[in-house]
Amino acid sequence: MTEYDPKDMEFRFLGNTGLRVSCLSYGGWLTVSEDSEKVTKECFEIAWSRGVNFFDTAEIYSNGECETVFGNVLKSLGWKRSDYVISTKLYFGFGEKSPNGRGLSRKHLMEGLDQSLKRLQLDYVDVIFAHRPDREGVPMEEVVRAFTQMINDGKALYWGTSEWSAFEIEHAHHIATKFGLIAPIAEQPQYSAFHRNRFEAEYKPLYDLYKYGTTIWSPLAGGVLTGKYNDGFAPGTRLGDQSSPVVQRIRKQWETPEGQAKIAKVRELTKIADRVGCTTAQLMLAFLLKNKNVSTILTGSSRAEQVVENLDALKVYRKLTDADVDEIEAILDNKPDYAALY
Amino acid sequence: MTEYDPKDMEFRFLGNTGLRVSCLSYGGWLTVSEDSEKVTKECFEIAWSRGVNFFDTAEIYSNGECETVFGNVLKSLGWKRSDYVISTKLYFGFGEKSPNGRGLSRKHLMEGLDQSLKRLQLDYVDVIFAHRPDREGVPMEEVVRAFTQMINDGKALYWGTSEWSAFEIEHAHHIATKFGLIAPIAEQPQYSAFHRNRFEAEYKPLYDLYKYGTTIWSPLAGGVLTGKYNDGFAPGTRLGDQSSPVVQRIRKQWETPEGQAKIAKVRELTKIADRVGCTTAQLMLAFLLKNKNVSTILTGSSRAEQVVENLDALKVYRKLTDADVDEIEAILDNKPDYAALY
Amino acid sequence: MTEYDPKDMEFRFLGNTGLRVSCLSYGGWLTVSEDSEKVTKECFEIAWSRGVNFFDTAEIYSNGECETVFGNVLKSLGWKRSDYVISTKLYFGFGEKSPNGRGLSRKHLMEGLDQSLKRLQLDYVDVIFAHRPDREGVPMEEVVRAFTQMINDGKALYWGTSEWSAFEIEHAHHIATKFGLIAPIAEQPQYSAFHRNRFEAEYKPLYDLYKYGTTIWSPLAGGVLTGKYNDGFAPGTRLGDQSSPVVQRIRKQWETPEGQAKIAKVRELTKIADRVGCTTAQLMLAFLLKNKNVSTILTGSSRAEQVVENLDALKVYRKLTDADVDEIEAILDNKPDYAALY
Amino acid sequence: MTEYDPKDMEFRFLGNTGLRVSCLSYGGWLTVSEDSEKVTKECFEIAWSRGVNFFDTAEIYSNGECETVFGNVLKSLGWKRSDYVISTKLYFGFGEKSPNGRGLSRKHLMEGLDQSLKRLQLDYVDVIFAHRPDREGVPMEEVVRAFTQMINDGKALYWGTSEWSAFEIEHAHHIATKFGLIAPIAEQPQYSAFHRNRFEAEYKPLYDLYKYGTTIWSPLAGGVLTGKYNDGFAPGTRLGDQSSPVVQRIRKQWETPEGQAKIAKVRELTKIADRVGCTTAQLMLAFLLKNKNVSTILTGSSRAEQVVENLDALKVYRKLTDADVDEIEAILDNKPDYAALY
Repeated sequence: MTEYDPKDMEFRFLGNTGLRVSCLSYGGWLTVSEDSEKVTKECFEIAWSRGVNFFDTAEIYSNGECETVFGNVLKSLGWKRSDYVISTKLYFGFGEKSPNGRGLSRKHLMEGLDQSLKRLQLDYVDVIFAHRPDREGVPMEEVVRAFTQMINDGKALYWGTSEWSAFEIEHAHHIATKFGLIAPIAEQPQYSAFHRNRFEAEYKPLYDLYKYGTTIWSPLAGGVLTGKYNDGFAPGTRLGDQSSPVVQRIRKQWETPEGQAKIAKVRELTKIADRVGCTTAQLMLAFLLKNKNVSTILTGSSRAEQVVENLDALKVYRKLTDADVDEIEAILDNKPDYAALY
Repeated sequence: MTEYDPKDMEFRFLGNTGLRVSCLSYGGWLTVSEDSEKVTKECFEIAWSRGVNFFDTAEIYSNGECETVFGNVLKSLGWKRSDYVISTKLYFGFGEKSPNGRGLSRKHLMEGLDQSLKRLQLDYVDVIFAHRPDREGVPMEEVVRAFTQMINDGKALYWGTSEWSAFEIEHAHHIATKFGLIAPIAEQPQYSAFHRNRFEAEYKPLYDLYKYGTTIWSPLAGGVLTGKYNDGFAPGTRLGDQSSPVVQRIRKQWETPEGQAKIAKVRELTKIADRVGCTTAQLMLAFLLKNKNVSTILTGSSRAEQVVENLDALKVYRKLTDADVDEIEAILDNKPDYAALY
Repeated sequence: MTEYDPKDMEFRFLGNTGLRVSCLSYGGWLTVSEDSEKVTKECFEIAWSRGVNFFDTAEIYSNGECETVFGNVLKSLGWKRSDYVISTKLYFGFGEKSPNGRGLSRKHLMEGLDQSLKRLQLDYVDVIFAHRPDREGVPMEEVVRAFTQMINDGKALYWGTSEWSAFEIEHAHHIATKFGLIAPIAEQPQYSAFHRNRFEAEYKPLYDLYKYGTTIWSPLAGGVLTGKYNDGFAPGTRLGDQSSPVVQRIRKQWETPEGQAKIAKVRELTKIADRVGCTTAQLMLAFLLKNKNVSTILTGSSRAEQVVENLDALKVYRKLTDADVDEIEAILDNKPDYAALY
Repeated sequence: MTEYDPKDMEFRFLGNTGLRVSCLSYGGWLTVSEDSEKVTKECFEIAWSRGVNFFDTAEIYSNGECETVFGNVLKSLGWKRSDYVISTKLYFGFGEKSPNGRGLSRKHLMEGLDQSLKRLQLDYVDVIFAHRPDREGVPMEEVVRAFTQMINDGKALYWGTSEWSAFEIEHAHHIATKFGLIAPIAEQPQYSAFHRNRFEAEYKPLYDLYKYGTTIWSPLAGGVLTGKYNDGFAPGTRLGDQSSPVVQRIRKQWETPEGQAKIAKVRELTKIADRVGCTTAQLMLAFLLKNKNVSTILTGSSRAEQVVENLDALKVYRKLTDADVDEIEAILDNKPDYAALY
């Protein structure tokens, strides 16, 4: 067991709480393979050695397998429980047919968390997220009551939202106020240089009102912001896969004029990265870290080297100047405007 | 273990919650006999195979035996807990003389639920009902506090009422508001084509204010709406039993002019059923399902064939036209009027 | 100006308040004629001289004229404001076509009270009643907020309900609790020996929960309980009027077997009255006064002698024994049962 | 003075209140000219004679002049106050430079309403709207407290919002809940066949949660939906004005390919109108009236004939079939989708 040493990691409060998370963290959403426990353990160890203290998963990831792997890895690593922060997310169930096997009903939430904790071999998670809003008719009171009870039961310390609209998050706060319940403290949103409106504009009042926290997913726009598609969709890369219909559909979006215009921007960003002396991915992570409303960026990888590369974005973030940021903004030319949103 | 498959079942939210129940469900109120486990298991399996996910019982049914049978059957079937929804009801105890052995005192409620859970071999029920209002002096605050605690203790996910007046249900909501407690979400009322006033008129504001759910019992008016007494009370039928004083009292009510007028209506309903191509019972269940304030109808039987007959009412419901419903209403000629109620 | 002297009047608190009202009081619902100011003034003076301190009217009575008459009479009598208690009732407007000219919207309530106060030439009424529930879609929150504001504005001291169901009164209390508003304190219900269910059974929990007050109207069942129709509907009596279709419709109800059975009971009651040495009307008012949930009975008359007769019921009430009451109950044979109600 | 007669007008509750407004109403936003009192009086009289009972203005309209005209016209017409419903809107002040002369500060709201009431010569308006959200830093608590006080002071019966985001409206409800204040009951939004997203998608949860009311402005997209620009921007029409830079900017938007595509749709709508036997404007108003979340449509005109034309849309609305609506939807091809919004 390696004793935890934060080294030169930067920690940020996860929203308006006292919980400190490393600004770069590890998300386990990737597919689980045969040697996934071994690989995950390597990734955890590297991240840990660089000061990462926050690890995120979800019940749906590989239908519970990701949580099981996390549980086994954490057990074998033997880290002190207070040294790390772990979150999981409930909503999707395992995609089964049972009508109560998914969603945000009290039934799925209470049953789902108990199942997740078993797989994780933990008494509690630090943060439990609602992986999506439930728009099929579940009243918000039921949702907020269930998460409050999880916290009161000691099965979670905080609760958060994922991919909820600002309206829905505000409504959850309203209901918490109304019934004296516990409000969510953070959102897990998609956010990248190419996906900014919701994070920067729609959520703006949430930062002002509640200091709402954020745990970012897809910070590199599915890989496009790494620059690896600057010269086309080469075989061997994810979007270069000619066999998967899903991948082909995504690739087609990048092949439209709008998609190509974005990739042209990535080529410009790569030039800045070259000048700064980092990878394009690192530049893009550093750019997001400059936003103080980012609590932490979830970076996920099943390769140790990539974990290292991602974590080194911290150094880039520290040396990135305001002029660099302005130059990136000029290339992106997509800064959201709250006033324009409504 | 059969994996749950909802097939073409229709699910409805149980009131203003995220809990989905099959619109036809299984109620275990019948008497328990020697082979009741075997019979109940058969009924459960047939219902399950048709998409039923909701099963209801009560502490009083055969003085706890019904819960015990349910518990054994559920254990032997090995269904996944999240796939089914189970409720029980507290109030009557076992008819014992002990002054605290029944009613809605905190003492009976807390003790009663623990006993029910033991018999059911479960950690929690999905819904716990107050089987009757307690009008002997138990303050509503005590009742609502006890049910709230059951939910907070994880022994139930929701609570409901059974045979409460609309006033009492509203008073429970008032007390929940006043003390920040959890309000009931559904009522288990008697409701049939011959017993409509309370369900359709008295409860009307509850649907408007709270989207209050309902789990219907006695949907066939004790069998009269099956048409089996259309030609008199034949020996071998329940009401044909000449030995039981209770049965004789009930039969006498059907032999009054008012009772006979109702049976004349059933004969007309049977004609419609013949035309539609279903049994009178199926027609009557389908007629109730047309009411959107019905969350689920509890159908109870100890014979597998009858379970099948009841569940096939779903098909009848789906083909019943507005004109059919109008014709049924014209025969019944008893549509309740909220304005006339008060 | 006559100084007020309560003499031997009995005062009762109007529900759970500190407001004391004479148990017999004066209601001005009768039609207004040319000399109505003169007649009303006579009635007021007689009532006053016997200790009556409570006077009730409504905006709808003769489309505002009744309030105007009350206002003029009160002004000319010059009574001290603190000596008398006055109430009016809002709901019906003047029957005009304007969609906001009636009902319990904030608009009609606020505008209606201001108009009533002008007609009454008063700064405030003691009690303002909602003359009916508004079941056309006005939310209870709006109703309770408006009455609360009237009280906060000093335009009324208390508010009450009239012909509301127990459910609606409980819902008003719920809303008052929920929003920290002022709940109603009394109901103005129809109540007589022939109209008991609502008052004695449906409202029962309101007395237990809130010590809800009552100001009774139609205590003599439209005159039938005076015994004046014991021998038929003679010309010159109200129900003897052959010209009015409305009267004829009411008379027909008394001519049914059920109606005749009631009149047969009145004949028996008249025998008791004879024995006790009072009129049948006085006996019936005395019988109602025996019910401690009656705060006051509104007796209305445009003839001075009748006012005297009604007020003398107080003496009958004081000498009526429990055995007399039992005898009356035996004749009536209609004591409501709360359990039977639901 | 003409007595008010609703005739065959359709009234709708303004949100979750008891206030009934005619579904077509009169908005006074147009510019005020020399004979504006005469013209406005004519328009009021015609509208009134057709059953319109709701009239809307704002402090900014002609810098207070519109309110002054409304006040004079109402005074000269002498209508009964309870027969009509009047609203005004605060936010913009008169465009003055004083930092406190506009916005939603308590200072501007309290001062602004008093000034508006003076101009209107009224003791109270029925509804007071916040003409815009104040995003410059005014806390919502201050805004909701100020509107609550207006209502408690008797200067307004209800308050509403105009052009607020669903988030802001939900936040106002949250604050009202938190501090026991009065929440807004209706929004005055732009809504037309070409401007649907906010009304139909963004606001959707507000209808579900609060039955939020709406008073529509710009129902004809600035005139384009009347069909008068189907053949170009002719001299003499509003958008044909070559002298105004503002008008030219608006016209240019309609001259883009997207703008022209919309006008092509209007040409198709005009064909339907011809077939139905009404003007394109009437068809478009009728189409909006089909949406049950529309409480009332503000139609504004300074020409009596146009008022008549607009109000005759009620007849078109009554005969418009579901098939007609489907056809209109097919042409518009812009039905908003809540799921796509977020």
